[in-house]
This record gives sequence, C-alpha cells and structure tokens, in this order.
Amino acid sequence: MSIPVFYLEKPEIQNFLSEDDSFHAHRVLRLKKEDHIFILNGQGKKFKAVLTASDSRKSTFTNLSLEQEALINNNLLNLWIAPTKQMERMEWMVEKCTEMGIRSFGFFFSKNSERKEIKLARLEKIIISAIKQSKQLYIPTLHEIISLDQLVKKLNNQENLNAFANITSDNISSIQSLIRLKKITNVLIGPEGDFNPTEIDMLKTSKFVPISLGESILRTETAGLFCTAAFNLSN
Amino acid sequence: MSIPVFYLEKPEIQNFLSEDDSFHAHRVLRLKKEDHIFILNGQGKKFKAVLTASDSRKSTFTNLSLEQEALINNNLLNLWIAPTKQMERMEWMVEKCTEMGIRSFGFFFSKNSERKEIKLARLEKIIISAIKQSKQLYIPTLHEIISLDQLVKKLNNQENLNAFANITSDNISSIQSLIRLKKITNVLIGPEGDFNPTEIDMLKTSKFVPISLGESILRTETAGLFCTAAFNLSN
Repeated sequence: MSIPVFYLEKPEIQNFLSEDDSFHAHRVLRLKKEDHIFILNGQGKKFKAVLTASDSRKSTFTNLSLEQEALINNNLLNLWIAPTKQMERMEWMVEKCTEMGIRSFGFFFSKNSERKEIKLARLEKIIISAIKQSKQLYIPTLHEIISLDQLVKKLNNQENLNAFANITSDNISSIQSLIRLKKITNVLIGPEGDFNPTEIDMLKTSKFVPISLGESILRTETAGLFCTAAFNLSN
Repeated sequence: MSIPVFYLEKPEIQNFLSEDDSFHAHRVLRLKKEDHIFILNGQGKKFKAVLTASDSRKSTFTNLSLEQEALINNNLLNLWIAPTKQMERMEWMVEKCTEMGIRSFGFFFSKNSERKEIKLARLEKIIISAIKQSKQLYIPTLHEIISLDQLVKKLNNQENLNAFANITSDNISSIQSLIRLKKITNVLIGPEGDFNPTEIDMLKTSKFVPISLGESILRTETAGLFCTAAFNLSN
C-alpha cells in the first residue's frame, strides 16, 4: 500500500491529526501504531511521520521529517467566478481545479447572477480532499463572495494581471497570450447570463483585459476548468 | 432571446424535430409557428429554419438554409477511458469534454478496472445536450466498452497516433509534445488503480507512447478533462 497522505496546517506544533483524519486513518485505512504517514501543510511542505497511536478520535504522530518542499507556489491563477445556481457544478469545478493546481478561488455576484450567496464550509472540505488526492503542495485560498464592484476595487489595489472571460468583444486576446506573461493573474468568469454591457465597460475602464476561451460557448464551471488547465499546461 | 438550437441528424430529409426537442421547443421555450430555430446536424453543419408548427410531440419546420459549415472536424482527440466506479464522474467528464470539443469517447476495461460495463444511452443524451449548449458543429462519436487487449489491436490497425497517460515511466514526453504533431491522437487513460506493469509493457511494445499529464496526480475523469483542454488550447 502506498503511504497515506493527510493535511495539517502546523504539524511542527500539533502532533495529532484532525478528528476527521484520525477517523479515516483508524477506521478506513486501519493504520496502526508505527505506521508511516505523509502530512501536507498546504504551504509548500510535505512531511513524513510515524504514528504513535491510531485512534478514531485522535491519532498522534512523532518523528516529523521534511520529505519535499516547494519554495514558491507555481500556480498563477486566481479564479473569480459568479457561482451557478446549481451548487453541485461549483463543487465539481473546485475539486477538479484543485487537482490540476490553482492559486485561489473567489466568488462574486453581478447583475445577471442567479446566486448571490455561497457557503464555503463544504468547498473547504472538497479542497482538502483534492489536495490530499493529487498531492498538491499548496492549498488554494478560498474567498467569501462579494459584489463585482467590490471585487474590481479590491483587485485594482493589487499588482497582478486582471482579465475577464468575454465572448462578445471583438479582437480580444486569447488566454494563451495572457499565460505567456508568467504573472499571477486574476481571471473573472461571469454568470450564466454573462456580464451586461455596463459591467463590460466598467471592467475595460478598470484595465481588466477581455480574453477569449476559444470558439466554444462554455458553461461557467467549464470555463473555470478550461482556464485552470490552460495555466497548468504552461508550467 | 437568442435563437434556440436543436440537434437533428438529417434535417435535409426530415422536416420535424425529435419528440424530446419538440416538447422542449413547445412547452419549455414556448416557441410558436414562424419562430426561427437553428439546427445542428453534428457533422459540420448548422442550419437555420422556420417553425411551421409547434407541438409538444412533433414540431415541424421549413425554409432550411445553411448558416455555418466546418468542412473538417478540428477536434483531434479520441479519448479512451477505463470508466470509474461512480458513473456520475464519467457523465460529468463527457459533458465537459463535449463542451470543450472532442472527436470521440471510448471505454475499455483492464486488470485493475472497477467497472467493466457501461450504458451509453444516458451519455448520448448528455452529449447532444452539450453540443447544443456549446454550439459544437461536430458531435463526438461514442464507442462501446471493450477490453484493453481488443482496443490495442483495434487502434494498431489505424494510422493515428497512440498514447497512454502514465505516471510511473521515466523520461516520458509531455502531452504538449504530442499535440504539436497536429494529428488525430488516441489517448488512453487507465483505471483508478492504473495500468499494471504487464499492461504498460504491452502498450509500449505496441508503440503506444507514454505521456505525462504534469506533476499532479489526477483522478481518471480529471485526466480526461485535462487532455481535452490541452488539445483544445492548441487549436
């Protein structure tokens, strides 16, 4: 059996797994005292450790040693999505994008949004499960939903590249041209009814680059997957 | 409202929509006589037509005119997947890959497969719905499940490029290097327990190229999505 992987924010100062992970280690994987485990801290480090007790509520470990380290987060994409009505589609997207590797997820609502609130707890669990599965060294950040106006103000105060997926503007850049710049990039994906003309003008005035995702008309969550794959392929 | 899109294999010789589409046109979209519609034939052509009757069982049309034509199917990827136990994951993948654009889907089972049969009827519906949604001019072909041995024999009799996703082989090519060849390509994605060493030897002996999908360990369906995005980005 390959060595099982767990997630723990600060394994250097906390020598036991979370309750969920303890249960999984003990009951599902049937790990025992002295079994080896890997621990990801989500901040670039993968550790190896040895279980000192396997218990369905609190499994403890010792002999923590650094196994692998990525000094820089190579994931350059911050994805900002107007969530779809069906939350399942967002959950799926978050899982797949995390597996492929992404810097962060954030949500916004605009005029045509069908959903203006979003609960992050379930998405957090999906992300942790996906980083363990795919062995990502960096955990993507998850941001609360805000309005498009607030988001544009927030991103304008940062030094990153800003872009938005757009199907209606003429002569727009491809996503590939954006990726070639090798910078941290915020990509906004509008709601199913798209950004309205006033919002598109506002985004352009705020120096957000309209980009094309190709000839197909992609659903919101497919656009998110496609952008993530595109950034990932350039690594 | 934008003009609604329907799918019909031979609109030149059948002047009425399928029962499902007739129902959708009449009851959901509330189309009426003289409303315009688009019809995709899934073989490169998009037609415009005018409804002569809107009825929940049989909606008829006239004035068929060619609106758009793609003489060649630009989608170069034939994806061959060892299906996951959870059929839902395959359904999602098929929907997303169709939206992005793909040439065909096929299924196979190998030693570590958890699923050795698959029903295509539901996947066919998902594909048709996704081509209408994304306005793909070519409908992907769907193949029945066969064994890995049968698949290798079948593909060896054709002139396309053959490859398989592999995480264990050393010094393997990236998927990008394969895409650069701009040929029709079969990519095999193994089951969740991966191909076994005997199968990997057999694939290599049969001149299937092992390719890497990057550093992340992707689930089967994510690997399928990632390959499709990669081929689509090169268009």
